[in-house]
Amino acid sequence: MLELVDLNQRISGEEYEKIFPDLEAQLAACQRMARQSGIPIAIVFEGWDAAGKGMMINRLAQVLDPRGFRVYLTGDPSAEEQRRPWMWRFWKELPGAGEIVMFDHSWYRRIFDDAAQGRLSRKEYQQAVHDILEFEKQLADSGLLLIKFWLHISAKEQRRRLKRLEQSPATRWKVTKSQWEQNRKYKKWQKLVETALQRTSSSQNPWTVVEANQGKFARVKVFRTIISAIKEACARREREPAPSLTPMPEPDESQFYRPTILDRVDLTKSIGREEYERELEVLHKKLYELEHRCYLAKIPVVIVYEGWDAAGKGGTIKRLTRALDPRGYEVVPVGPPTTEEKAHHYLWRFWRRIPKTGHITIFDRSWYGRVLVERVEGYCSQEEWERAYREINEFERQLADFGTVIIKFWLHIDSDEQLRRFERRQSDPQKQWKITEGDWRNRAKRKHYELAVIDMLQRTSTLYAPWTILEANCKLFARIKSLRVVVERLEAATR
Amino acid sequence: MLELVDLNQRISGEEYEKIFPDLEAQLAACQRMARQSGIPIAIVFEGWDAAGKGMMINRLAQVLDPRGFRVYLTGDPSAEEQRRPWMWRFWKELPGAGEIVMFDHSWYRRIFDDAAQGRLSRKEYQQAVHDILEFEKQLADSGLLLIKFWLHISAKEQRRRLKRLEQSPATRWKVTKSQWEQNRKYKKWQKLVETALQRTSSSQNPWTVVEANQGKFARVKVFRTIISAIKEACARREREPAPSLTPMPEPDESQFYRPTILDRVDLTKSIGREEYERELEVLHKKLYELEHRCYLAKIPVVIVYEGWDAAGKGGTIKRLTRALDPRGYEVVPVGPPTTEEKAHHYLWRFWRRIPKTGHITIFDRSWYGRVLVERVEGYCSQEEWERAYREINEFERQLADFGTVIIKFWLHIDSDEQLRRFERRQSDPQKQWKITEGDWRNRAKRKHYELAVIDMLQRTSTLYAPWTILEANCKLFARIKSLRVVVERLEAATR
Repeated sequence: MLELVDLNQRISGEEYEKIFPDLEAQLAACQRMARQSGIPIAIVFEGWDAAGKGMMINRLAQVLDPRGFRVYLTGDPSAEEQRRPWMWRFWKELPGAGEIVMFDHSWYRRIFDDAAQGRLSRKEYQQAVHDILEFEKQLADSGLLLIKFWLHISAKEQRRRLKRLEQSPATRWKVTKSQWEQNRKYKKWQKLVETALQRTSSSQNPWTVVEANQGKFARVKVFRTIISAIKEACARREREPAPSLTPMPEPDESQFYRPTILDRVDLTKSIGREEYERELEVLHKKLYELEHRCYLAKIPVVIVYEGWDAAGKGGTIKRLTRALDPRGYEVVPVGPPTTEEKAHHYLWRFWRRIPKTGHITIFDRSWYGRVLVERVEGYCSQEEWERAYREINEFERQLADFGTVIIKFWLHIDSDEQLRRFERRQSDPQKQWKITEGDWRNRAKRKHYELAVIDMLQRTSTLYAPWTILEANCKLFARIKSLRVVVERLEAATR
Repeated sequence: MLELVDLNQRISGEEYEKIFPDLEAQLAACQRMARQSGIPIAIVFEGWDAAGKGMMINRLAQVLDPRGFRVYLTGDPSAEEQRRPWMWRFWKELPGAGEIVMFDHSWYRRIFDDAAQGRLSRKEYQQAVHDILEFEKQLADSGLLLIKFWLHISAKEQRRRLKRLEQSPATRWKVTKSQWEQNRKYKKWQKLVETALQRTSSSQNPWTVVEANQGKFARVKVFRTIISAIKEACARREREPAPSLTPMPEPDESQFYRPTILDRVDLTKSIGREEYERELEVLHKKLYELEHRCYLAKIPVVIVYEGWDAAGKGGTIKRLTRALDPRGYEVVPVGPPTTEEKAHHYLWRFWRRIPKTGHITIFDRSWYGRVLVERVEGYCSQEEWERAYREINEFERQLADFGTVIIKFWLHIDSDEQLRRFERRQSDPQKQWKITEGDWRNRAKRKHYELAVIDMLQRTSTLYAPWTILEANCKLFARIKSLRVVVERLEAATR
């Protein structure tokens, strides 16, 4: 594909002067349109060294409203970034609704530079391609407009530019050894780039190869590509009917295959106070030690608690954290998303909070809200929650690939037990604050939630991130089991 | 003061068992009260090595609802933190309304450890004390509850603990050379701590010295102190009438000392298109070079644009950024605060966005909103905006002390010119989006704003962060002058 690129394409100065001002005006208008439509835009600039990425971004920055864009320069990962899965730093930087982020180099550094310099094994390379495809698919599905440019120049042109840069004292510092190295191995590099471009082109997120031997030609092509992409995205958004957001209809019995996974939960399991105290002490001791071992082994740990209202999440989490050094863990309570969070991909807020190496993050509710409350209440469309199972599995896979231990709990109680607890809370002035109208509303939808929970358990229990159901009619039993599972998983990870 | 502390204070196991469970229950209730009252709480733990800070935080963590607190471990500053004023990392971590943050070591590291290890000059020490006092005052004034503990043990007790830790293989790694060093120089350290405690005790933010030779005694004292501080803070908040939030009354002529600083602005200043283009090119070239020089010299730059609606802030900023490499600057448009921002000190959101060394941050509107729109519209109380002048000067001083170049512009146009521009915008379909009803509302309050602007210019123009008024009836003139001032300031800084 790159060999067929015609690098002789040029545009005359006269023609350029004629058409470029209009392109500038159009681009500025497009930015306003995109802002109004609330479309997030990410523009990736990759290409040969000295192909003019920086200049191109500069040129765009001159036209765009500076209050609406950011530039992210992809340097070597910082210490903080090295302590998380490699995609973390890009997730963090994603544009919100109506924003533009230009990436000067990007996640492609990994399969261009890292691969070229032999820093990736074959398996790691394939993994990286997979991660990228998944990442870009998730973005596109969520309505983000991603535009990817490869700025292409010939070996000869690259040589000419590097020499010219070296001649001036003002620009000499820009030329590095690795750039000359790239020029010497141009052919080999080209093959590698070619493969990478092909593998990461999708119909949703295609690459645009830009003939960049002549700056003017390249600019015109980049401007035109961005303009038409934004226009198309805005038109698509207007054309497409808003997704229908309807609450889940009352499920009928035929939607359940009895006995369901929930029917089979043995809620009579219980434990006496004395045994509880004894076990608690033993497990706490183990856990305290394991936390330290995980810290030394630099293992990140994610623990998720989901469950029925009043199932005892808070108490169970407390029995867990009591054994932990508070400098090593964080509890993240998950409520409705804020305005800023709503302006981003729904996983954005969770990506930002994942633990760094050696640390534990406990989520009190989590990204599973997407397939529970959002599905039941119709806060997202059917297409969105159906897609979410896969997206969540991929999210957790990336964490697991990085070495994260993922432990997920569903706290299960039956409807009668829940009612008893609600009533007890309501009559106890010390506990009234714990019960809200929302709890009663959710309770009325027990059957809806059951269906959603069953789907969730079945579709997101993976080898690397299995669900554990906690039989929680007896709170003490649930707490001990939760602790035991955490201990077992951490023991296995540090063995 | 430390010599008078009676380290023989003890509590019997029996008494402890009797009173401690009740303290735990009270503390948990206090956390809920504070959350309901929306009070942010910061608890600082400082003390001798091996005095039990970690254990104490652990004990508190066992009682508190883990969803409502965080622990911040003050390690050595990270690379990112070293590139900003030293208080940045603490500002970032401040609790929002209803949150608790426990600091395991804190900003006091600087005047305890750094000073003890000779890493601070006398002048730096005094500066640090000043910064701390100012920081804590700002927090207290904003309604944050700060509780500071010094855990005190005797030299003998410290020696005993270090030895015991060394004896067990499980804890040996905890004991470092510097801890033994501290023990050897206990007397010298004590004097230093004593001075620091005295200098940083204020009526708003006193220190509590905790006799920590016996763990039980220390725990009881810490719990009791926190409980009573929270109760008091909640009671105070209930007792105090909500601050009256009233818009600024119509100012009368007697409030102006004519001619005011604004009256004296010569709005006839202008420049022709040709001269403009010529100057623009010259200044852009200089600026491009200066940006790079600042980068190499690791100088952070803050540029603030404030001004009347339609005075041309956007266009002026654009003429500035056009000359800059977009990887080196960021434009921060400042709108009404988000819910999260409102839950914090009003300067929190600006502290978070200050530039790192070698970078430029351009604020399109800024923290001056406090003394402009918030004052005029009554979004904050009179006490709050009156305090703000000093708080802002201190904020900017800390940036300047770190070496930041601070450039502030007020874009001035007269009322007639503003009306012309509003009308032109309204009649041009391409520009209608630029004008909102809010603009007309603000215009009706011209006189109010004039008074606020005059106060602002006079009270926050400092040697380290002076205001420049841009005569903006002629847009071209304002743009050139803005560029020229930026060039001059950066030249002076890199000379």
